[in-house]
Amino acid sequence: MPSKYRNFRNSVPWIILFLEVVLIILFYFLFSDDDAPRSTISYPAFQDVNHMVIFGFGFFLTFLKRYGFSSIGFNLVITVLGVQCSVLIEDLLVLLLQRQYEDGLKRITKAAVSMTAVVISTGAVLGKTNPVQLILMAVVEIIAFHMSRSINTTLLQVPDNISMMHVHLFGAYFGLAVSSHFSEPSPRTEKNASTPKSDLLSMLGTLFLWVFWPSFNSVLLVKEKTKAIYNTYFALAVSAVTAFVLSLLTAKDGKFRMTDIHSAVLAGGVTVGYAAHIIEYPWIAMILGLLASGIAVLGSYCLQRCLHPALKIHDTSGIHFTFGLPGVLGALAQVVLFVL
Amino acid sequence: MPSKYRNFRNSVPWIILFLEVVLIILFYFLFSDDDAPRSTISYPAFQDVNHMVIFGFGFFLTFLKRYGFSSIGFNLVITVLGVQCSVLIEDLLVLLLQRQYEDGLKRITKAAVSMTAVVISTGAVLGKTNPVQLILMAVVEIIAFHMSRSINTTLLQVPDNISMMHVHLFGAYFGLAVSSHFSEPSPRTEKNASTPKSDLLSMLGTLFLWVFWPSFNSVLLVKEKTKAIYNTYFALAVSAVTAFVLSLLTAKDGKFRMTDIHSAVLAGGVTVGYAAHIIEYPWIAMILGLLASGIAVLGSYCLQRCLHPALKIHDTSGIHFTFGLPGVLGALAQVVLFVL
Amino acid sequence: MPSKYRNFRNSVPWIILFLEVVLIILFYFLFSDDDAPRSTISYPAFQDVNHMVIFGFGFFLTFLKRYGFSSIGFNLVITVLGVQCSVLIEDLLVLLLQRQYEDGLKRITKAAVSMTAVVISTGAVLGKTNPVQLILMAVVEIIAFHMSRSINTTLLQVPDNISMMHVHLFGAYFGLAVSSHFSEPSPRTEKNASTPKSDLLSMLGTLFLWVFWPSFNSVLLVKEKTKAIYNTYFALAVSAVTAFVLSLLTAKDGKFRMTDIHSAVLAGGVTVGYAAHIIEYPWIAMILGLLASGIAVLGSYCLQRCLHPALKIHDTSGIHFTFGLPGVLGALAQVVLFVL
Repeated sequence: MPSKYRNFRNSVPWIILFLEVVLIILFYFLFSDDDAPRSTISYPAFQDVNHMVIFGFGFFLTFLKRYGFSSIGFNLVITVLGVQCSVLIEDLLVLLLQRQYEDGLKRITKAAVSMTAVVISTGAVLGKTNPVQLILMAVVEIIAFHMSRSINTTLLQVPDNISMMHVHLFGAYFGLAVSSHFSEPSPRTEKNASTPKSDLLSMLGTLFLWVFWPSFNSVLLVKEKTKAIYNTYFALAVSAVTAFVLSLLTAKDGKFRMTDIHSAVLAGGVTVGYAAHIIEYPWIAMILGLLASGIAVLGSYCLQRCLHPALKIHDTSGIHFTFGLPGVLGALAQVVLFVL
Repeated sequence: MPSKYRNFRNSVPWIILFLEVVLIILFYFLFSDDDAPRSTISYPAFQDVNHMVIFGFGFFLTFLKRYGFSSIGFNLVITVLGVQCSVLIEDLLVLLLQRQYEDGLKRITKAAVSMTAVVISTGAVLGKTNPVQLILMAVVEIIAFHMSRSINTTLLQVPDNISMMHVHLFGAYFGLAVSSHFSEPSPRTEKNASTPKSDLLSMLGTLFLWVFWPSFNSVLLVKEKTKAIYNTYFALAVSAVTAFVLSLLTAKDGKFRMTDIHSAVLAGGVTVGYAAHIIEYPWIAMILGLLASGIAVLGSYCLQRCLHPALKIHDTSGIHFTFGLPGVLGALAQVVLFVL
Repeated sequence: MPSKYRNFRNSVPWIILFLEVVLIILFYFLFSDDDAPRSTISYPAFQDVNHMVIFGFGFFLTFLKRYGFSSIGFNLVITVLGVQCSVLIEDLLVLLLQRQYEDGLKRITKAAVSMTAVVISTGAVLGKTNPVQLILMAVVEIIAFHMSRSINTTLLQVPDNISMMHVHLFGAYFGLAVSSHFSEPSPRTEKNASTPKSDLLSMLGTLFLWVFWPSFNSVLLVKEKTKAIYNTYFALAVSAVTAFVLSLLTAKDGKFRMTDIHSAVLAGGVTVGYAAHIIEYPWIAMILGLLASGIAVLGSYCLQRCLHPALKIHDTSGIHFTFGLPGVLGALAQVVLFVL
């Protein structure tokens, strides 16, 4: 049905434009900065998170040869649309629950952190969706994420900044769920291929994320920021070392594989996300980093052969191993630390 | 006359070296940091602007296949020469007008902001000039810009930080004026071509500029910084969405074109440059972002076919649409906001 | 002996893993953050240094076509291993010399600054070593560097932050010493070749380093930070101009050569590293920048032809000219400034 498809393509820009106009109108009614207390977020901290989401994740997902432009471009559009939605949802919750307004900078920062969930999810469906599906996914996911956060903070009394750190877990499993509804592309097509050049650009994005990860884990904290920063740094450091070790161990030719590094260096940062500010000694963070990286690399070997074909999941950029499993480990670690 | 040209080429380094020695001697006589009050510029804010000018604009202009190195290299040389000139001119004005010295960090920051005008202008003549012409243009333009600023602040009583935001407008039209004195390269030569790889690097620069633009609009403000930051962010966000929408609408094959994104995502940031700190509600900034992006994309379609051939202007990287027209829109918006 | 080599390759990951486990155990016994005073390092300053070491130097060393991935990947692993070693050595010194603990953020920052020495050294042996040799070199060098610092601060009464700035000098000459033990690769092999694309990525790293260098020179200072920042900026600016001038003068075809720019733009920042905070007027920093860049470019012409073949040194990325000679010049300049 090419004519039907052409009609659809033609309607895409109008749908996005309509969404944007609706957002502007909602901003007119909902957004208010009055009586907000002084910001607890410094501008450089917001900048770091913004940089990560727009630039870091944009390049992190460029490893498919045919989707270099698309992943950077769509990432930008989805992120900015999602941030606007997210700010509005927060404002609506403030109105409904009679809470106090937060200042503008903090609201954008929280929105940018929430968008990480969506950006992670797009990693699972990379190269399989059209823009409208992506935008629909972004809007639905951001609403679902805020509902889950609301339940967490209201019913389970989880602190606000901790509930925010569920982004990785939420994003990874939401992405996998969406991904299972798409047919897997045949593994030999060009669509699924990466080139050394695209791998290098993807590594550029990964390094960006690696460097800025301590900012991500500490941005919403009010105190114990320094502790969160150095615990995250050490967890990431041990993750990076373990990723190389395991990549060398599992490779047959004695060379490390870029995809392992790509998926495992960040695992430590994800794992300590919940607990970075309450971990007393860096060696605990380092052990978590080691375990996280191990799970990421070994998981990618076992699960990709056993679990995924059985569940018909196709996870383009391995977000299950990079963000999903380390997130689960982090949640377990947090429970253990609380009990101790 | 190849021998004459060779003589010229040989004299280029000596001219630059002579200029640099003159600058050092002038610094000996003019630069003073005594009695300067404590800086109102934080180092990270200066860093952001510096990063934008050296790195962001350097890569923003790499989209011509044959000028990747040159645009990064010349951008660096021109910027550092221009910053030195600009600091000296400011010091001379302080001496002549008996004003108070500002501290060193603020002076470099202001100089780096001024240099944006020159960097924008080089976008119009990219691939058509030799280094000496570029350096001559930089020195003349930076002097002209400071004269125009001086007139603005002294006669028209425009606040100093607002007069600084005329850089985009000044840079764009100065560049177009210079560009009309060069012959247009024939459109089919390799000189005018871009490759997917160079486009991707250019997008890297564009994303950098996009992320740092709120810093640019807020760096010279003393109060209302947070308001300027989030208004700029929302304007940029709507700009990015509109750029994609219009790129899809004007494309024939249903794919967005990188050049549209490249030229329109920044338009919103340029437009709210003057008024970011006085815009009361984000929805105003968002509407300005929508209009700015619309002008940038539609302008590039209409003007490039009608106006430019008539005026014999050849604008290599479309700075007229990215910085010129959105700057005009911003100036109009500021007047309307003042009247209301 | 291919089977022996295969055995060696197989043991590499276990050696690294063993080292990492030892580090975690040592962290358990040595690392303590109790009674540390409030940090004098701001997080953005640490971030800048971290970004430089991981991202800037990683891409700075990608200019060999065949070592793009390896230089980024090994740089990451070596840096994070070295930072952990360095933090532990500092803690051991604190225990042994009964000094006061510093806070966690400051310790990581100092460790990251120290690691610059190792990263510079790897530049000399790029493409000639295997991972284990690199890691061995990193561990030995970081221990040697801390011993040299300890002697400097204890016996020669050099202030702590100045002794830290010896990294460039130490790194360059340590790297050259190590390099003389490796056989020079034959100059025509592919191993030694660079492509325009790899040069461009290397320029990306260089620009990053250039932009962040003022952070590097000011990060450990407690006062006179602003002075250090603008002196470094002006020294770097004049360095960049001089690098272009000399590159044009020494080129035969009237085009600047990327390798000259690559090695000389940073020379000014290295030279003023020791004295950036005590230089009274920027023109002194500018003259130092001019001299440093001159030494770097001219040194690379003379030394590479006369001295290096005689001493059988092969310096892959020209660290002798980028960091070694400008470091010597900086040390001389500091002595002259002290005497005056």
